[in-house]
Amino acid sequence: MKLVVIVGIPGVGKTTVLNLTKKRLEEEGYVVKVVNFGDFMLDMLVSKGLVKSRDEIRRLPLKIQREAQAEAGRRIREFFEREAGEEEEKFIGFVDTHALIKTSSGIWPGLPLHVIRELMPDTIIVVEADPEEIVARQLRDTTRYRRDLARVDLVRELLALNRSFAIASAVLSGASVNFILNREGKAEEAAGTLANIIKNL
Amino acid sequence: MKLVVIVGIPGVGKTTVLNLTKKRLEEEGYVVKVVNFGDFMLDMLVSKGLVKSRDEIRRLPLKIQREAQAEAGRRIREFFEREAGEEEEKFIGFVDTHALIKTSSGIWPGLPLHVIRELMPDTIIVVEADPEEIVARQLRDTTRYRRDLARVDLVRELLALNRSFAIASAVLSGASVNFILNREGKAEEAAGTLANIIKNL
Amino acid sequence: MKLVVIVGIPGVGKTTVLNLTKKRLEEEGYVVKVVNFGDFMLDMLVSKGLVKSRDEIRRLPLKIQREAQAEAGRRIREFFEREAGEEEEKFIGFVDTHALIKTSSGIWPGLPLHVIRELMPDTIIVVEADPEEIVARQLRDTTRYRRDLARVDLVRELLALNRSFAIASAVLSGASVNFILNREGKAEEAAGTLANIIKNL
Repeated sequence: MKLVVIVGIPGVGKTTVLNLTKKRLEEEGYVVKVVNFGDFMLDMLVSKGLVKSRDEIRRLPLKIQREAQAEAGRRIREFFEREAGEEEEKFIGFVDTHALIKTSSGIWPGLPLHVIRELMPDTIIVVEADPEEIVARQLRDTTRYRRDLARVDLVRELLALNRSFAIASAVLSGASVNFILNREGKAEEAAGTLANIIKNL
Repeated sequence: MKLVVIVGIPGVGKTTVLNLTKKRLEEEGYVVKVVNFGDFMLDMLVSKGLVKSRDEIRRLPLKIQREAQAEAGRRIREFFEREAGEEEEKFIGFVDTHALIKTSSGIWPGLPLHVIRELMPDTIIVVEADPEEIVARQLRDTTRYRRDLARVDLVRELLALNRSFAIASAVLSGASVNFILNREGKAEEAAGTLANIIKNL
Repeated sequence: MKLVVIVGIPGVGKTTVLNLTKKRLEEEGYVVKVVNFGDFMLDMLVSKGLVKSRDEIRRLPLKIQREAQAEAGRRIREFFEREAGEEEEKFIGFVDTHALIKTSSGIWPGLPLHVIRELMPDTIIVVEADPEEIVARQLRDTTRYRRDLARVDLVRELLALNRSFAIASAVLSGASVNFILNREGKAEEAAGTLANIIKNL
């Protein structure tokens, strides 16, 4: 089994690259499962009766949030290990998440020590794109992105911060880091690169 | 209680922003305490009879220094928890310190694993300023700053390193990071931004 | 005893600077030992019958690789402590290694948590050079370097990543970081700077 964490700032096209990579790997006989970290944690907290919606998570005491994050990390790894079962050699578990999360109380690490030590990924994939292309995408879809943040200088800064967060998390777990450039209209190429990296793990 | 670590390279105006933020928060009914990490550790080591002055700390074996740093971190958190007491909801504890410390033996992390895991802050505030403005301030006050280090390229590099150190520490503790730009003559604005972040924690 | 980790991307002239620094320190009465991390780990794994060559290490399960790295780190420190013996005051142990290792499965941390916490160095030395000079060196020796990677933009990016990896490792261990610029034809100068830093530790 290989556990692959995939991250990227909003607008880089992470989901597209992830779906195309999954398809390619499945065509080559791999068994691929994708878990969204945020959704998984929300379901876990709802089933415990601790929250009813995503917004309520941020209002939990920070200590409880950290414990929930660590537990989600541990359970995701356990889930993949069960799913892999006998097909251990051909199993790829993707965790779709963020290296950083920008909120009104700051930039939070998406893969802090207590999470990354539970996940213990083989690699952290950082999907990136040209800042100009990211801004163009964000301006095309203002239902999903905030127009006031769609600025090349802000996006460039966030890409740089994202690298620093991803590297700090990699050093904690001993995972490799891969920066995958998703060029406009070339998501298939990015998926090809990513699939090769995973096969080399 | 919220524990806020505040850092910044020399000349960014950290103390000014901190004092203005404290005043604002107090005016809104918060109880705010500020502890300077270096002073706290020095007092601790003096009271144990291990050193007589700040200069002697660097001459202690590195292992002893690390233990003292960890102990200072633990005691600062305990101090804040006692001070917060019943007013837990309205208590803000600031730790005034550095993400990096430049010396003749290298750039030392101010918030290494053994310190940050004791402090476990809610957020790390990185006060920053325009490199040209920092150099101008440093040249105005050569009693406090070294003239030969007051160079825009060196200051720009140190600001970048400071971000990397702060991010690595944040990933270890799960704290958020906030980069606060302190514009020349606009410290009140920076304090307003910072006070809002803290209220959002 | 001082334990000094020295890293640098290919082509910065790390070995030259290391050898000159060793010579200088020995001339001043220091006892200096150098251990190459990769060689040490290979010898250890060969003696255990786990591998026969360097290439086989990457094919071991990641969990086994991580355990081997941690064990190598622990044994290197123990080796230095034995070698230092009574001359503890004058002993310098160098670990020649990498902050990052670029492979077909990504950029791996050379000093991840499980290694750096065993080594617990006093300082991490990052040897750097001008990107243009690195590329010129790489193009002069294409038996050792890949011609297609000898590009200024790639080298500049790798130097920046190398800093981030080194800083993350320093924050984990509480070691200082030193960036040593090795100018073309000035390796003696770089060695002089490095020897002074070590004496200041």
